[in-house]
Amino acid sequence: MDKISLDVKKITDLYEEGRKQYIKEYLAELHPADIADIIDTLDEEKKKELFNLLHAEIASKVIDEVDEHSREQILEDINKERLTDIVEEMESHKAADLIADLPKYDAQEILENLEWEDSTEVQKLLKYPEDSAGGIMHTELLSVREEMLVEDAIIQCMAISQDVGNIHDVFIIDKDRRLVGVLPVRKLLLIKPEAHMSKVMDRNVISVNVNVDQEEVAEIFKKYDLVSLAVVDGEGKLAGRILIDDIMDVMMEEASEDILRFGGVYRDEKVMDPPSRSIKIRLPWLIINLATAFLAAFVVGLFEDTIQTLTILAMFMPVVAGMGGNAGTQALAIAVRGIALGEVSFSNAKRPLINSIIVGLLNGIVNGIITGLIEYWWKGRYMLGVVLCLAMIINLIIASFLGIIIPLTLKWLKIDPAVASAVILTTFTDCIGFLSFLGLATIFMKYLV
Amino acid sequence: MDKISLDVKKITDLYEEGRKQYIKEYLAELHPADIADIIDTLDEEKKKELFNLLHAEIASKVIDEVDEHSREQILEDINKERLTDIVEEMESHKAADLIADLPKYDAQEILENLEWEDSTEVQKLLKYPEDSAGGIMHTELLSVREEMLVEDAIIQCMAISQDVGNIHDVFIIDKDRRLVGVLPVRKLLLIKPEAHMSKVMDRNVISVNVNVDQEEVAEIFKKYDLVSLAVVDGEGKLAGRILIDDIMDVMMEEASEDILRFGGVYRDEKVMDPPSRSIKIRLPWLIINLATAFLAAFVVGLFEDTIQTLTILAMFMPVVAGMGGNAGTQALAIAVRGIALGEVSFSNAKRPLINSIIVGLLNGIVNGIITGLIEYWWKGRYMLGVVLCLAMIINLIIASFLGIIIPLTLKWLKIDPAVASAVILTTFTDCIGFLSFLGLATIFMKYLV
Repeated sequence: MDKISLDVKKITDLYEEGRKQYIKEYLAELHPADIADIIDTLDEEKKKELFNLLHAEIASKVIDEVDEHSREQILEDINKERLTDIVEEMESHKAADLIADLPKYDAQEILENLEWEDSTEVQKLLKYPEDSAGGIMHTELLSVREEMLVEDAIIQCMAISQDVGNIHDVFIIDKDRRLVGVLPVRKLLLIKPEAHMSKVMDRNVISVNVNVDQEEVAEIFKKYDLVSLAVVDGEGKLAGRILIDDIMDVMMEEASEDILRFGGVYRDEKVMDPPSRSIKIRLPWLIINLATAFLAAFVVGLFEDTIQTLTILAMFMPVVAGMGGNAGTQALAIAVRGIALGEVSFSNAKRPLINSIIVGLLNGIVNGIITGLIEYWWKGRYMLGVVLCLAMIINLIIASFLGIIIPLTLKWLKIDPAVASAVILTTFTDCIGFLSFLGLATIFMKYLV
Repeated sequence: MDKISLDVKKITDLYEEGRKQYIKEYLAELHPADIADIIDTLDEEKKKELFNLLHAEIASKVIDEVDEHSREQILEDINKERLTDIVEEMESHKAADLIADLPKYDAQEILENLEWEDSTEVQKLLKYPEDSAGGIMHTELLSVREEMLVEDAIIQCMAISQDVGNIHDVFIIDKDRRLVGVLPVRKLLLIKPEAHMSKVMDRNVISVNVNVDQEEVAEIFKKYDLVSLAVVDGEGKLAGRILIDDIMDVMMEEASEDILRFGGVYRDEKVMDPPSRSIKIRLPWLIINLATAFLAAFVVGLFEDTIQTLTILAMFMPVVAGMGGNAGTQALAIAVRGIALGEVSFSNAKRPLINSIIVGLLNGIVNGIITGLIEYWWKGRYMLGVVLCLAMIINLIIASFLGIIIPLTLKWLKIDPAVASAVILTTFTDCIGFLSFLGLATIFMKYLV
């Protein structure tokens, strides 16, 4: 049993014994992320009860860590006063996210109940789009004027440390609040206290505009190995800071985006999107694919006479075509991921290409022989088995080659290689499968009938 | 033109004019990550030349940021003395990574040329597997004994700050070097200097064993929103620390792993793996799929007489089956990603399921009508067009439903939902496509011939 299961069992037991005080004490020892994990495994009723046992400060952290589903259930009919207490405990950008998710009427009520200072801060943040730098930034930060001394910065740091978690950098601003420099907070320890900030700060400060898209922000974090990043408004004035853990989810989302392209979804569709949006995104792509599907139909049409002569061919057509699709999709997945992680490009493609052809050949031989044997056992046509085997080998070699070469070519053309979706590839492998199988059958027809 | 292209143009121009000193000055102004980006775009010759212009300290950072391919080219025939200088400048864990990549003979030579202290450190690190906590940890860190004072920690911090970048935490150890506590370095500013570390440290210190797999380390970082993490050996002695930027690539890799499963590759195959490994991973899965492909063949076989009567059906079979695969794969990609990001599970599946059926119906109607019209224009069989349209609608509805329900069911069964690969789904949609199209054709046969 892992740690979470043990905790859940312990808590469920305490519940049944009605010992709520013990549960409270038990939870007090746990990290908010662990409490969130426990809550995620409970049923709706218990989720709410357990959450209500938490002190507002802990609750404000737990609500941020539970999964989206638990969050919805917990917020559904939570007491407004309690919710206000919880929101008061949150950092302003997380408070803004939570309030943005509430029904408009409830959001208004919470905003009115908040202390004036918190409320104006949150309302300011609510104006930025959720996926912009402004939408994910913290407004709580450590900033000092450039003419101040290091010791002033230390005093400032002490003053705010109660309210501002994870201070990594001191941001230095001029008299108009424009960002002019940065200094890692640990360096305050190392510099003599009477130095001027303007003399010790790093003027090469990296920052982003409030309107920059969060994906671009994630790229900047990744590229420069940052832990925190300053956000400025249109006039270069310091507006907030973004921390690495806020950007982590964005990075995860971005890294998993390729699976959509791979599956033939070319815009960032979410699982909860309404049908109208889904259709708008998916239909154009399906129609393009319809055109390519007719290409496969056209190939089959070339061999209408052959099929007329030997209808049994229609049965085995999908086997050859389908297996090509499967083998090609495997190669494609490997290549798309390798490109995304920067492991392969056209310039070092020789090895993966040759390898892929070898893999296609050998997988083709094994699958071809099995297919031929099954056909012979089932239908007893010796020569048809040979044709099936040969067609399978041809299709798997070409499919494995295409699975690597298509995404590499797209990458080289500076097109997202994930658009070489499984769907495009399958059209190719269908056509080649039909062509090789029906073509060979036509050639060897006199041995088949 | 973006910044990088401008830089590259500038540098190429300076090259042609033979003004190397200017290039050096130009590069001195750039961030190592930007220099790496420039190097990645140059041809092999220029890559090496540009790299050789860099001061060893900058070079040690740039070599860590260039892509794998550039790295290989640069290291290929680099001067050993220069390489030693570069390695001396690196943090020990990065030095160990670089040396591990070198041919054995070269690695030995570099290790012998390194200063004794660096060399022993690197050799210790080389013993850990590359993908374990030990393999990715830094050994440079800030640690103090528990009986020491805050002011001692500050002095210690000042002493090492030249060599150790990004100090986030002070690790507190007992007399046997066992990890007993942690304190964020910024808190040193806030506590009175004469306090004992043991009184002010946080005893709930999260740590991992040196042998823990890097993916598990990434999970811990994500869960607890960490920026740095202590690594301990089997006896609980402090061995090193891992920083968030070291773990970032691991997270990216993990997040993009689903695309492999989705494409029918069930172990972590890399694009540069040898064919023997690829075949071992992919072949079993292809053979399973071969069995399911024969299921589709069996379905077609049920309608052998129908196809015998009307061979033209064999042409349009792949259109209906293929479009079902395409539509289903789209829904599947959305669902697999939604599950991976924690946006959907069985408990809130009603909305996405209903939405998906609506999307399937409407996409089916549009594609069905187009298909029917094309058939009528091409082959002139009015009733065959109607059958095609109906079969298409049926297949797309079922495909869209399966694309959501299969991964959700797997998730509920605690199986990785990405194994509901496009490949499995396509088998279903092939069978349903053939069944609906050939079934309807059989029913309406008298209107078709």
